Amino acid sequence: MTDTYLHHEDHIESSDLLKDIVIGMSDGLTVPFALAAGLSGAVDSTSVIVIAGIAEIAAGSIAMGLGGFLAGQTEQDHYNSELKKEYWEVDNIPQKEQEEVRIFFRELGLSSEVQEKAVIELTRDKDVWVKFMMKHELGLDEPDPKRAGKSAFNIGISYALGGLVPLSPYFFIADSIEALKVSVGITLVCLFIFGYFKSKLTGVNPLTGGLKVMLIGASAAAAAFIIAKLIEG
Amino acid sequence: MTDTYLHHEDHIESSDLLKDIVIGMSDGLTVPFALAAGLSGAVDSTSVIVIAGIAEIAAGSIAMGLGGFLAGQTEQDHYNSELKKEYWEVDNIPQKEQEEVRIFFRELGLSSEVQEKAVIELTRDKDVWVKFMMKHELGLDEPDPKRAGKSAFNIGISYALGGLVPLSPYFFIADSIEALKVSVGITLVCLFIFGYFKSKLTGVNPLTGGLKVMLIGASAAAAAFIIAKLIEG
Repeated sequence: MTDTYLHHEDHIESSDLLKDIVIGMSDGLTVPFALAAGLSGAVDSTSVIVIAGIAEIAAGSIAMGLGGFLAGQTEQDHYNSELKKEYWEVDNIPQKEQEEVRIFFRELGLSSEVQEKAVIELTRDKDVWVKFMMKHELGLDEPDPKRAGKSAFNIGISYALGGLVPLSPYFFIADSIEALKVSVGITLVCLFIFGYFKSKLTGVNPLTGGLKVMLIGASAAAAAFIIAKLIEG
Repeated sequence: MTDTYLHHEDHIESSDLLKDIVIGMSDGLTVPFALAAGLSGAVDSTSVIVIAGIAEIAAGSIAMGLGGFLAGQTEQDHYNSELKKEYWEVDNIPQKEQEEVRIFFRELGLSSEVQEKAVIELTRDKDVWVKFMMKHELGLDEPDPKRAGKSAFNIGISYALGGLVPLSPYFFIADSIEALKVSVGITLVCLFIFGYFKSKLTGVNPLTGGLKVMLIGASAAAAAFIIAKLIEG
């Protein structure tokens, strides 16, 4: 392993962490923001809004964190069970599996001659063959066992931190509509900033991306406010 | 297009719809459930819980629906911009792009002779070549432009319907702790059922999957209940 390779790996790790933080925060900003806005339209007491907001943040970050962790485990189980199945197939129905390799090369537009040679060479080593089937027949990459858990934890924590932003004015301002005005201001700015960075990380135009994330948050908050107002009558 | 092909497409469409419904519902059951449970620990009036719950459902379904729709658009934009870039590269730096095709075949363990022939055949047709680079260098499949919007809509609606399950007892029972008991009962049963089907659709052991989804919901609700109780003092 060369230094360049190590450096590259470092780069991936830190950008993964950044991605988790940005995803968690921009989601965390949206739903607690909309919930607080909705309740501001219906209840005067900010203490109820603070309790509801914190209950939502706890619920949301656990659902995202634990959900992500268990999804990661499931992905690992799924990979292992498919791997076992492919080894069995390669051992027991090799003709059928060879035919599937041939179809892959045929679909790339290669000639019968090259298809034939590629199939013979690729199916010589059983491990290479199975790995090929996993990736190109089933579209499965070997999951990183630590990655899913860490990622879920990071997203969960970031969701909680993001959720505290729209809620913070309600800690200090007694009137719910006054608190809502401050909450709207700071949250829309934060949503734009996080949408901007989220887009940069995924290689999308950051200005459009920032506006989209801001639009989602604003629509959700407006809808929650109007609906809560209507129910409260 | 043969009848068999059409039949196959039908099958995919209906299972996609089913998947959207199950994903939306099992998520919709979780967060509104936990929010209602949290508030039940802190407020006596079920009317506040109903308002908060409906505000959350509106916020969550818009965030999921609109968020999913915009993410689908972004994916399409991203695909188109990468496609343009690959055509440019194939036109302007063909040697480098041919080398990348060669590396793909080398990593499959093919001999130099077969690598060479495969590269020549594959890079003969520019469209085939670009499509290959998109899929195997960048890991991008052409997104279905209608699919993302429809899927987001289905998930959003299912989230809202799922969210009404844990909330429904609060419509009819005046005491919040009494309503919570009924809510816990029906929601855990529904979470198990939806987790069971979610796992079946994704090819995972349905019993374990059902228990996992139920566990996530129960943990989120318990945490929200305890935290709200602590804040309320």
